[in-house]
Amino acid sequence: MEGDPTLRLRIFDLNCWAIRYLSKRRQERVRLLGDTLRRESFDLVLLQEVWSEQDYSDLKVKLAGCYPFSHYFRSGVIGSGLCVFSRFPILDMLLYQYSLNGYPYMVRVGWVCREPGSRAGVSLGVTAPLLSLSLQLHAEYCREKDAYLPHRLVQAWELAQFIRHTSKAADVVLLGGDLNMHPEDVGIRLLRGWTGLRDAFAEATRFEGRKNGCTLVPDNCFTDKSELLPFPLGIRIDYILYKAISSFTVKCEELKTTTGPAPGTDIPFSDHEAVIATLHIQRQGQPVGATLGTADPALADVVTEARTEVGVGLRAAQRQRYSSGRMAVLALLLLLLQAVAALGTLAGLGTEQPFPKLSFCLLAFLALGVLALSTALHLFHTMEVKMLHGTEDQMWMALRALQERP
Amino acid sequence: MEGDPTLRLRIFDLNCWAIRYLSKRRQERVRLLGDTLRRESFDLVLLQEVWSEQDYSDLKVKLAGCYPFSHYFRSGVIGSGLCVFSRFPILDMLLYQYSLNGYPYMVRVGWVCREPGSRAGVSLGVTAPLLSLSLQLHAEYCREKDAYLPHRLVQAWELAQFIRHTSKAADVVLLGGDLNMHPEDVGIRLLRGWTGLRDAFAEATRFEGRKNGCTLVPDNCFTDKSELLPFPLGIRIDYILYKAISSFTVKCEELKTTTGPAPGTDIPFSDHEAVIATLHIQRQGQPVGATLGTADPALADVVTEARTEVGVGLRAAQRQRYSSGRMAVLALLLLLLQAVAALGTLAGLGTEQPFPKLSFCLLAFLALGVLALSTALHLFHTMEVKMLHGTEDQMWMALRALQERP
Repeated sequence: MEGDPTLRLRIFDLNCWAIRYLSKRRQERVRLLGDTLRRESFDLVLLQEVWSEQDYSDLKVKLAGCYPFSHYFRSGVIGSGLCVFSRFPILDMLLYQYSLNGYPYMVRVGWVCREPGSRAGVSLGVTAPLLSLSLQLHAEYCREKDAYLPHRLVQAWELAQFIRHTSKAADVVLLGGDLNMHPEDVGIRLLRGWTGLRDAFAEATRFEGRKNGCTLVPDNCFTDKSELLPFPLGIRIDYILYKAISSFTVKCEELKTTTGPAPGTDIPFSDHEAVIATLHIQRQGQPVGATLGTADPALADVVTEARTEVGVGLRAAQRQRYSSGRMAVLALLLLLLQAVAALGTLAGLGTEQPFPKLSFCLLAFLALGVLALSTALHLFHTMEVKMLHGTEDQMWMALRALQERP
Repeated sequence: MEGDPTLRLRIFDLNCWAIRYLSKRRQERVRLLGDTLRRESFDLVLLQEVWSEQDYSDLKVKLAGCYPFSHYFRSGVIGSGLCVFSRFPILDMLLYQYSLNGYPYMVRVGWVCREPGSRAGVSLGVTAPLLSLSLQLHAEYCREKDAYLPHRLVQAWELAQFIRHTSKAADVVLLGGDLNMHPEDVGIRLLRGWTGLRDAFAEATRFEGRKNGCTLVPDNCFTDKSELLPFPLGIRIDYILYKAISSFTVKCEELKTTTGPAPGTDIPFSDHEAVIATLHIQRQGQPVGATLGTADPALADVVTEARTEVGVGLRAAQRQRYSSGRMAVLALLLLLLQAVAALGTLAGLGTEQPFPKLSFCLLAFLALGVLALSTALHLFHTMEVKMLHGTEDQMWMALRALQERP
């Protein structure tokens, strides 16, 4: 049996919405979550939006018995909000920063699976990239005028590229998190198509939980009902995705979502529902070629669609860069004009001051403010243009590679 | 012979020092560089500090014949300054951003090697991460009081982790760039030890060029002589590093550096010397296990040394965070005090104003300035603390893994 061990893996994923001073009943919910995690003893727990390191430390103390390995990702000014608890050793980690904003993170967790009857433990190295997009829900609800779509697509592309390049070092790739995208969105299709990741919800043999696997639902007491008006059933934006590399197969046996209040209480864990997957990981007799997930014939269409959207974003960013640059130049000209007028008055060239002193000063302050703001905007849009342009180039390269493939 | 093809690869690496309006004789040097690259026709050209996209475009047009594939990395406000020219197709790329600053970049270049006598071309996929640290030379010359050492170590660590995680998807890893570190520095030892990369200078069968392979030398007409006073021979900070993965072996047959003025002219290409390596890549009969470069028994010592330095930086950053926070609070208190005094005067509580109006206003402006500056510093140091802390954690995890290894 040594060549054919099976590992049953239970994964818990939740966007905790635990923002100090802002999130309602935060401490109570974190305590409740800790109790549940301790009772259920999953194999891997992926949490997002744990913004307070104290909450993580409390959870760590509480869960030390059943999840001896954990990590909190520190970054930026307020941290990343991401943490992971694991029954098995965390071997390694790598932080990857999006070029536009937000951070996905990768943890390598090593599992050792001991089959009854087998003499040696067979170690299954599993790479679990853990993701939480920091782009918040705004873009999700204004689907008609989604100004952030190109940014989200750049992030989805970068994440997909990151997974492609790092996944060869793993046997199984797991990704859990709040992707802030609906299942049919081009960003999700791009991510899944370009990496070969499978959606646990779509693949699960059994499903139990919210209808359509929705994780943000109007009848949760913490969600903003008005924002979810176009979606009476809710939306599915939290995912567990997976794929097997080399000589492994992965099957999703069961997928669950929580359904409102935690057992025995009146409040849910968060404004999101948790996603719980049970995966079966099996070692095959012999290695199979690594799939980079580019076998789907419709993939070229998805990349083309994404590239078109990025191109639209690029044009918009170029226009905004131009407008903000022009505004900065105008403000600078006004300031120069004022300086000339002031110097003229000081030198006694003009007989009278053209404006009252106060208005003159106020105008100068206004021009200075506009100059500072428009310069900052110009710099931001310059960066944005470069990133969108770079992503468009990369997608073009990917399309060429797809077309050249026999 | 199909199982044993050999590829001879010539790589050119140069920090071009091509900053618009600032670098001396820039256009002349870029033209000269283009002529030489066209004449010599290397296989792969890695350039840093090409800050003007126009220079890249000019080179691209000039080199289209012998280097049909090229890429310029767009990022940030002023770009990355990095570009690559290749005789073989660029298959893919991935951008990785340092958490503190600077950007390394990765390009996957696909080589197709056709052996005389073999019927089929054997493709060698080669991953070439291209690196240019944006930390500039300041830290190099004040070696006694090197305040940037912890930052450089964080970058070296992140780069090493990035290479470890992405290199399994490649057969050969090449890294060329201005690492801004001396060969014996802990950062270089960490990078080499943790990734298993070999230094082309140390491994080369033949060497030709500047003594000790120095790439920044005092007798270059563009270098700042006073900064190189402690190093009369110069310093070696530009590297070509490599390693083979899976079923390949790589040997460095020859390493060269340029030695001052380009042939037939009176100026060198840059303030750095170029590094030119000739590598022999050979496919072995059967795959060997991937080496992650952690076989060196002294590696734990290097990681410990690096972790100690990062710890020193962490303590310094914590002190600076505290000082800047205290300064911000003091400035805020002063502002509040002034506001109370002003309100008191307005309400007619005080009979006389305690200060002349002008001094009062100037003091308020000063307090506001100090508040803004110290808040910004506090935020920066908060981020710095998080990053250094995170790296210290990761290094501790690495040490534990090294110690647990049989």
